[in-house]
Amino acid sequence: MRASNLALVLGEIHRRGPLTRAALSELTGLTKTTCSKLVGDLVEAGLVVESGALRDGERGRPGVEVRLSGDRVAALGLEVNVDYLAVCIVDLTGRVRQRRQVHVDNRGSRPGRTLADLRELAEAAVAESGLSIAGAALAVPGPVHDGVLQHAPHLGWHDVHVDLGMPLTVDNEANLAALGELWFGSGARDFLYVSGEIGIGAGLVVDGALFRGAYGFAGELGHVVVYPDGPGCRCGARGCLEVYAGQEALQAASSMERAGEALGLALASAVHLVDPGRIILGGVFAPLFPQLEKPVERVLSARLGGMRTPPSLGVSELGSDAAILGAAGHVIRQVVTDPAPYTSTRSAPA
Amino acid sequence: MRASNLALVLGEIHRRGPLTRAALSELTGLTKTTCSKLVGDLVEAGLVVESGALRDGERGRPGVEVRLSGDRVAALGLEVNVDYLAVCIVDLTGRVRQRRQVHVDNRGSRPGRTLADLRELAEAAVAESGLSIAGAALAVPGPVHDGVLQHAPHLGWHDVHVDLGMPLTVDNEANLAALGELWFGSGARDFLYVSGEIGIGAGLVVDGALFRGAYGFAGELGHVVVYPDGPGCRCGARGCLEVYAGQEALQAASSMERAGEALGLALASAVHLVDPGRIILGGVFAPLFPQLEKPVERVLSARLGGMRTPPSLGVSELGSDAAILGAAGHVIRQVVTDPAPYTSTRSAPA
Repeated sequence: MRASNLALVLGEIHRRGPLTRAALSELTGLTKTTCSKLVGDLVEAGLVVESGALRDGERGRPGVEVRLSGDRVAALGLEVNVDYLAVCIVDLTGRVRQRRQVHVDNRGSRPGRTLADLRELAEAAVAESGLSIAGAALAVPGPVHDGVLQHAPHLGWHDVHVDLGMPLTVDNEANLAALGELWFGSGARDFLYVSGEIGIGAGLVVDGALFRGAYGFAGELGHVVVYPDGPGCRCGARGCLEVYAGQEALQAASSMERAGEALGLALASAVHLVDPGRIILGGVFAPLFPQLEKPVERVLSARLGGMRTPPSLGVSELGSDAAILGAAGHVIRQVVTDPAPYTSTRSAPA
Repeated sequence: MRASNLALVLGEIHRRGPLTRAALSELTGLTKTTCSKLVGDLVEAGLVVESGALRDGERGRPGVEVRLSGDRVAALGLEVNVDYLAVCIVDLTGRVRQRRQVHVDNRGSRPGRTLADLRELAEAAVAESGLSIAGAALAVPGPVHDGVLQHAPHLGWHDVHVDLGMPLTVDNEANLAALGELWFGSGARDFLYVSGEIGIGAGLVVDGALFRGAYGFAGELGHVVVYPDGPGCRCGARGCLEVYAGQEALQAASSMERAGEALGLALASAVHLVDPGRIILGGVFAPLFPQLEKPVERVLSARLGGMRTPPSLGVSELGSDAAILGAAGHVIRQVVTDPAPYTSTRSAPA
């Protein structure tokens, strides 16, 4: 009961911003006494602070607002991608406190070695932040099932049980990048986020929630069929989107036109199938948007125009930080949804 | 309060099957007196019946079970498709009481004329059933927004505000067929239903609910890109799935092989994007399954095998009835979710 009430109070503060104890009592339906005790526990745990100077005996004074604290508890967002390792620390208020990215070629790397490097990068960031880390989440460039990275063809990794010596959520890079866009991006709540990295993935966000599919493998836009008889793809099939618009193809391309057309074709199929509210291009597609926009729009319009208005096309402002931000945001949501483990159980001071 | 309690009681009976009043009281948390009154109202409305002979003064006797009644209230499922009109009447227990299908070429037909014919077909079925119709839903071969059929290219209809002179829900044929499969089919709760008619559509069911997309246009499998430079499609694009595997292409095809391969290519893109629990082929694809199975499986395996196990592929048993059953099922769920309008408000007899 205490655990769910703590979550109720912290959830309101997280959702609505600073609130007085009286407002919290009204919003949660809890008595003022109960609310004050719960707020006391959250203050003591460093999850919230109260605004304004408080003198002894004045706790709960009207006008004093309770808000999330950025000073004690924070979330660790991590990423192993094909050509970089990245780490961020985001405090409970959503402010990025540390951000480190190391460019390194992880193709054909040994998972143990790469994860040890990532851990070192994370530990340095944590030490410098001086914050207490509530949890960590890791983005990887491949599908994940039950915490196991099934395969990351560009890394050459298969069936990797990721262990960083800390409690960890592991998820596909495109999924976490889409959540990063949801929580730290444009504010849209219905969109298809397209992640352009060495591989191409996508995350569909529907009414503020990530659509994962029956087995958690949804969003593999990079392997949607573009030209069935096209060049071979690393996945074993032919003519997948990634062959034409993956980062390696983009670097080798004599023309961005062809990449944009291929992206438009795959997105046309995606729009027909999932009808996203809008399309948001992220990762390397964002800086290339000036060159990609026209061919993508032209193909979307040609293929969809007879049936419907194509959804709007935009870019993410988050660059390659989208996935680590989504990872950290996931941890923040874990804390807000269940803050009890971060609080002590003794009574608040009278 | 009474309305939501009626829904609570009827919902438990609909979900769990026959229940005693005591069990209903326990499941709903309502007092036995309240439950008995609500059951009385539902009996009077003809929505439920009590099993076993009851003598005066014995209402609520333990052992007597309350179950849905098939004898008074029923749902009307309707369909306008390119080459047929169809009607069914399904009672509250889910039993099909009337089913009529008339083959007629509706290409280029006048909407008013066709809808009048459908209404006539429905009225004859209703008259013969002797049941009281709680509501109607209509399946149409095109996308629907706010009750308006946007366009049905095979019919040549555009922006048709459908009016049958009765309260009516209008929805896309593939959506309702997927719901038909959910409620009257294999029992699966996660699947992509593929509707093979003159046009090809699909309905994605996720955890027992239809996925509609941001604007209600999801599931347009027929226009997923198969060969970007292929023959022109009625939608204005080129090389859509429908060009290779729509009913007209199937009839003209020298080989089912090519249609199956095209279907496999579009389904491979769909699996990568939405990761359905399984794929269920319906409509004309069901009887053709023996010829389609191998090419579809081969293409799915070739395109997905490097990344994941392809989902299982099966057929619907509902044939061309899927959409009218889904339409009727939708109405039944409306009654169960909100039975108050079908009951009187006076007290049950003491």
